[in-house]
Amino acid sequence: MTDSEERQARYERGMALMNEVSGGQAQPFIDSLSDVSPQLVRQVAAWGFGEIYSRPQLVPRDRQLFTIGMLTALGGCEPELRLHIGVALNVGVTPVEIVEALLQSAGYCGFPRAINATKIAREVFAERDLLPVEGAL
Amino acid sequence: MTDSEERQARYERGMALMNEVSGGQAQPFIDSLSDVSPQLVRQVAAWGFGEIYSRPQLVPRDRQLFTIGMLTALGGCEPELRLHIGVALNVGVTPVEIVEALLQSAGYCGFPRAINATKIAREVFAERDLLPVEGAL
Amino acid sequence: MTDSEERQARYERGMALMNEVSGGQAQPFIDSLSDVSPQLVRQVAAWGFGEIYSRPQLVPRDRQLFTIGMLTALGGCEPELRLHIGVALNVGVTPVEIVEALLQSAGYCGFPRAINATKIAREVFAERDLLPVEGAL
Amino acid sequence: MTDSEERQARYERGMALMNEVSGGQAQPFIDSLSDVSPQLVRQVAAWGFGEIYSRPQLVPRDRQLFTIGMLTALGGCEPELRLHIGVALNVGVTPVEIVEALLQSAGYCGFPRAINATKIAREVFAERDLLPVEGAL
Amino acid sequence: MTDSEERQARYERGMALMNEVSGGQAQPFIDSLSDVSPQLVRQVAAWGFGEIYSRPQLVPRDRQLFTIGMLTALGGCEPELRLHIGVALNVGVTPVEIVEALLQSAGYCGFPRAINATKIAREVFAERDLLPVEGAL
Amino acid sequence: MTDSEERQARYERGMALMNEVSGGQAQPFIDSLSDVSPQLVRQVAAWGFGEIYSRPQLVPRDRQLFTIGMLTALGGCEPELRLHIGVALNVGVTPVEIVEALLQSAGYCGFPRAINATKIAREVFAERDLLPVEGAL
Repeated sequence: MTDSEERQARYERGMALMNEVSGGQAQPFIDSLSDVSPQLVRQVAAWGFGEIYSRPQLVPRDRQLFTIGMLTALGGCEPELRLHIGVALNVGVTPVEIVEALLQSAGYCGFPRAINATKIAREVFAERDLLPVEGAL
Repeated sequence: MTDSEERQARYERGMALMNEVSGGQAQPFIDSLSDVSPQLVRQVAAWGFGEIYSRPQLVPRDRQLFTIGMLTALGGCEPELRLHIGVALNVGVTPVEIVEALLQSAGYCGFPRAINATKIAREVFAERDLLPVEGAL
Repeated sequence: MTDSEERQARYERGMALMNEVSGGQAQPFIDSLSDVSPQLVRQVAAWGFGEIYSRPQLVPRDRQLFTIGMLTALGGCEPELRLHIGVALNVGVTPVEIVEALLQSAGYCGFPRAINATKIAREVFAERDLLPVEGAL
Repeated sequence: MTDSEERQARYERGMALMNEVSGGQAQPFIDSLSDVSPQLVRQVAAWGFGEIYSRPQLVPRDRQLFTIGMLTALGGCEPELRLHIGVALNVGVTPVEIVEALLQSAGYCGFPRAINATKIAREVFAERDLLPVEGAL
Repeated sequence: MTDSEERQARYERGMALMNEVSGGQAQPFIDSLSDVSPQLVRQVAAWGFGEIYSRPQLVPRDRQLFTIGMLTALGGCEPELRLHIGVALNVGVTPVEIVEALLQSAGYCGFPRAINATKIAREVFAERDLLPVEGAL
Repeated sequence: MTDSEERQARYERGMALMNEVSGGQAQPFIDSLSDVSPQLVRQVAAWGFGEIYSRPQLVPRDRQLFTIGMLTALGGCEPELRLHIGVALNVGVTPVEIVEALLQSAGYCGFPRAINATKIAREVFAERDLLPVEGAL
């Protein structure tokens, strides 16, 4: 396997994983920036998913909770928050768990970040017909 | 008074205060997230307003100036900035004082945050027919 | 139960929980700021733990992963990161899972935040004689 | 020269420079906030450009690369990012250099900030008919 | 008055004001960076204080509350927080007001930022023999 | 070349480049975290340097200016700022250019971030006997 064969394999492994967890959103993402920064989107797939996300040391469910925590705290990451809340649902996190985690975020990042992320969660839940969130009280 | 009676009382005290300072925006805010995270909005009212904001150690005017400072620095808090600039006007901060505070913010958070917050202030002032800001120079 | 009895009960419930998950660090924390802001530390216990953390909608293990994600992204939260990495170990998150989550953080917050949090994790692990981290590769 | 003559001269020097590097966007910017905070926009011109940007110790090209780095990391500065990516093109930074710098930003601020800034760059390039970016791979 | 006379006058006006509000800390600050960036410290005095802080549109007490709000939210600004909490005391903000504002900050920036700023306040109060804070409860 | 041979090659290419630009600081950095997160440091070398930094689309000097801009804005990245200011000097950025860029940062991130980064620059310059900075005025 030459260097470039290996790179291609890693990219394809990442794309497959990204597609699986996101429910097919990998290719549209890649396409959206391919005329400006093909390398950036390639690295999201090849490195972010092919190298890091695919490691067995942390289960997908834990990766998603951890990631939603980071994105909530950072602020200004609405598209990524939307994606990862969707992925979290796909890998078994329940809506009420997501909502509860975002409630907890108020104590660490303040209410504005918590409310903003909860609004994004609401949009994702609405698209999947998951409102009102069962068990949220 | 049982625990749950006390909780209800605290929530109602918070709602009344939130309504008073915001000019009636408490219920619409509560409603906007009630199907996704009723607890989060409840805590804004019961804790944020009922427990903290209602304390007499700092007057409302000072709370608002301090809060607008935080929201300007955080970035990405446009809805809260809009709300609190409105509240600030309600509790006696003048438009020219808000504009001057945001001018000062340039030196601590940089011009992008200062400009962004000033645009939000402009929107709030426009809705209340307060443009051009008198005494701003 | 009067209002103040309920407040005291909530505070005590929060202190007990905080003590349990942190291995007895609640009282020293309360004492450290009692001469400057007794209400702030009281609210960490009564609200943060007594109201929020004690809710059954999310298991402690998930709360910790989510919280470490937020603290890593925020930056400048070294004392809280130290506390919560310790709590995470107490509620069953393994060192290798923490390390893996922080590896993933590089892709969302960048390497500086990931490295900084990993250094804090290293300090906590060292105190507990958990170095080298087994299974980290 | 009196104090106010000097102030006026500084302002005009800043406006001229701001207009030159931005391709005529100085006056529209000044006008956009003149009814709310004439002093804030005046300081962007008089201080930001007339005092700081005009200093000879750093060439315009370097100022732009450095500034795009700051704006990418801060998040929530889309209008300024748009302006400075345009200015960068005006002073000789190539599209492929901008794209490459933003690729590198993933390692320091994480992919969400890198992707967000790259989308803004894409908009600026599209307006100038610079897509697909030549040499980006 | 020539341009450079005006600049010198503005710098001296800023230095006098900075010295007055900070209790004589202007010159040590200027000296601390004079061998690396004399212009940066000069601009803090000439622009930050001589141009902005000296404007009459906002009273010093309000400027300080607003500024402490920004610095708390930003994080990583311990030296500036220390300075401005001291200045706030000098211009008439009471310790209990500062402590209360920082309690409120928990709801907007989260407990880690609130606790960090309160620790800094505790240091400033300790130096001035203001502990325990009277009226804080 | 097998997959693991390719990985090893990429790592070694990254280490060589990291060592070259940092003046031999790659191995100490790798060693500092090898007992807690060998993969994290490996990825800094293999991905950060071997994949990204080594690309020819941006010259090292531009990469450093851009990176110092990001680190200044992020805050809380003192070790990385120290490293990259040193690297910047190694690849031909002059002290006065660094100081000027950090002066400019005041307008985008505010004075606290600018002052903090300038203090770090001062430490790096002091170690290399570059104080007072020639031409800084």
